[in-house]
Amino acid sequence: MRIALDAFGGDNAPDKVILGAALAVAELDVEVILTGDEKIINSRIRQLGVQTKNITIKHADGIINIEDDPMLIRKSKKNCSMGMAFQLVDSGEADAFVSAGSTAALVVGGTMLIGRMKGVKRPAYATLMPGINGYYMLLDGGANVDCRPEMLVQFGVMGSIFMQKIMKVDNPRVGLLNIGTERGKGRELEQKAYETLQNAPLNFIGNVEGRDPIANLCDVVVTDGFTGNVYLKTVEGMGRFMKSSLRELFSTNAGTKIGYLLSKKGVKNLSKKTDYREVGGSPLLGVKKPVIKAHGSSDEKAFKNAIKQAVSFCKVIQEIETGIAELSALKEEN
Amino acid sequence: MRIALDAFGGDNAPDKVILGAALAVAELDVEVILTGDEKIINSRIRQLGVQTKNITIKHADGIINIEDDPMLIRKSKKNCSMGMAFQLVDSGEADAFVSAGSTAALVVGGTMLIGRMKGVKRPAYATLMPGINGYYMLLDGGANVDCRPEMLVQFGVMGSIFMQKIMKVDNPRVGLLNIGTERGKGRELEQKAYETLQNAPLNFIGNVEGRDPIANLCDVVVTDGFTGNVYLKTVEGMGRFMKSSLRELFSTNAGTKIGYLLSKKGVKNLSKKTDYREVGGSPLLGVKKPVIKAHGSSDEKAFKNAIKQAVSFCKVIQEIETGIAELSALKEEN
Repeated sequence: MRIALDAFGGDNAPDKVILGAALAVAELDVEVILTGDEKIINSRIRQLGVQTKNITIKHADGIINIEDDPMLIRKSKKNCSMGMAFQLVDSGEADAFVSAGSTAALVVGGTMLIGRMKGVKRPAYATLMPGINGYYMLLDGGANVDCRPEMLVQFGVMGSIFMQKIMKVDNPRVGLLNIGTERGKGRELEQKAYETLQNAPLNFIGNVEGRDPIANLCDVVVTDGFTGNVYLKTVEGMGRFMKSSLRELFSTNAGTKIGYLLSKKGVKNLSKKTDYREVGGSPLLGVKKPVIKAHGSSDEKAFKNAIKQAVSFCKVIQEIETGIAELSALKEEN
Repeated sequence: MRIALDAFGGDNAPDKVILGAALAVAELDVEVILTGDEKIINSRIRQLGVQTKNITIKHADGIINIEDDPMLIRKSKKNCSMGMAFQLVDSGEADAFVSAGSTAALVVGGTMLIGRMKGVKRPAYATLMPGINGYYMLLDGGANVDCRPEMLVQFGVMGSIFMQKIMKVDNPRVGLLNIGTERGKGRELEQKAYETLQNAPLNFIGNVEGRDPIANLCDVVVTDGFTGNVYLKTVEGMGRFMKSSLRELFSTNAGTKIGYLLSKKGVKNLSKKTDYREVGGSPLLGVKKPVIKAHGSSDEKAFKNAIKQAVSFCKVIQEIETGIAELSALKEEN
C-alpha cells in the first residue's frame, strides 16, 4: 500500500509529517510518498535522523494555504504539495491520500481531481468526533453548504459503512440532526430526508438533537454542510472552554495546584478521550480513492494514525461503492 | 410592577416556583401573581410556610406539556396555568410574564396572544448563554425554523438593545453565525444578511464561527432558528460532557478524590460561571410585553432572577420598539 502524504500540510509541517511517515513505515506495512520541496524535505530528514526505508519523495512547488481560493488546486497550485499528492493518487502511483492542509482545497481536489464515485451526488466531509463514550461520525462537516434530501441519505449509507468496517461499530445507528426528536420536525429538508432515510438500507433511528451525538445516542449523524460545520466548530469551541476551565480550576490557589497533582491521572484520561490524535483524521466520503484530512495541528502520532486509517479505508472503498449502487437500485425499483 | 408567574411550568413546579415568588417579593419591588390550580398552590404555600404578602393567586385549569401541540395554548388549553398568565398580561392585569414551561407554547402564546411589536417580522427566542468570560445572546434559538435576511437584522437590533440595557454591555458586538469569517461565506441567507447588517444601526462585526461566541468574540449572535437551536443544544450537550468528565476525573482513585477536595473552590467557580440560575431566563424578543422563559430545571433562585430580569425588561420594551421603528425608517429611506 502506497500513501501520498502532503509534507507541507498542517501547523507542524514538515517536521511532524516526516516523523509521522517514519512511525508509519516502522509500524505498518506501507510505503509513504512525501510530496513537497525535495530540498527542504531531504534536509529535514537528515536533521531529524529519520530512516528512509519505504519513504520516497516526490518534488512539488509551493503550498496551498487556508486563505487561498481552494479552486487554485486545479489551476495555478496543481503542482503544490497537496496538488502533487492528488496527482499521485489519480495516476495510481499512490493508493490513498493524507493531508493536514486546507480542508476546502482537499474537498475541491478530492471531488475534481480524484472524482466522485459512480452514483454519488456529492462527496461529504465526514468528521470523527469524540463523544462521552467513544467516537461518532458527523457528515457533512462543510463540503456542501446546501443539500438535498437524497444527499443526506447517501451520507448515511457511506457513514454507516465507514463506522462499521473501520471503526468496528456493529449496525451503526444513523440519526438525522434536527431541532426535536418527533417526526415532522425541522425544515423541508429534514422532513423529506426523514421519509427517505426510513426506506433506506441502514439503521435509521430518527431525529437527533444537538446534544444527542455527544452522549453517543447515535453513531452516524447526517446533516447539511452548513449546519454540520456550525455544529463541529461549536463542539470545538466548547472543548476549548473545557480545557481553559480545567486550567483555571487547578490554578486557583496552592490547594488546587496540589489537587491537580493528585488528579493528574483523571485529567490524562479525559485528555485521551478527547484526543483527535487517537483517531487520525476525517475521510472525504464519496470520492473514488481514499482521501483523509488529518487535523491541522497533527503531530507525528496523529499523522501515523491518519496513515493507518487510510490503509483501512483502501479496503472499504469497494464496499462504499456497492452501498451507493444498492441505494440507487432501490430507488429505481420504487 | 406585577409579574404573572406560571406556577406549574418547569421540572420543579409548583414548589420551587412558589419559593422563587417568595424570594422575589422579599428582595424586589414587585407583586407576583401565581397562575394554576388554586387549591394545590394554597396547600403548598401553607406546607412551605411562605409569606404571601404581595403574592396573589389566579386560578387556572391544568397544564400545557412539552409533548402537547403548542397551538393548544390558543384553544383548549387557553385557561391552563401558562394560558392564564398570558391572559393576565394581555389584559394589563400583569406587566410581564415568566414561565419555565413549554418553550414552543410560550413562543406561540407570546406571538399570538400578546402579539408582535409594530414592525417586527417575527419574534425571536433569545437565549443567554455562558461563554468563557461572560454571557452572550444567541437569537433565534428556535422560534423560526426558516428566516429571511431582514429578520436576522431585526434580531440583531433587538438583541443589541437587550444586551446593552439589561446585561450592561457597552456597544454590543453583533456577529452573524456562519461557516467562515470571510465575507461571502455561507448560504444565500447569510450572504444577504451580511450586506443588510452592514448598513443597520448596530455594531456589526461580521461573520463568526461556531467556536467564536463561546470565546466571547461577540455579544450577540444572530442566526436562523434551525441553526440556532442546533447550536444551543450542542452547547448544552458539551456542557453535560464537561460535567460528567469532571465527575469521572475526580473519582478515578483515592488521590483524585483528595484532589477534588483541594480543588473544590475551582470547581465551584466553574459551576457558577456556567450556572443558568444566575441569569434567570431567556426573553422572547419582539412581542409587545415582556415574556421570559425560565430554564426548565429552574430552582427558587433561578425563578427569582427570572422575575428580576422581567422587571428590567419592562423598562426597555419601549426602547426595543423605537429601535425597530428606526430600522424600518432607515429601510424606507434607502
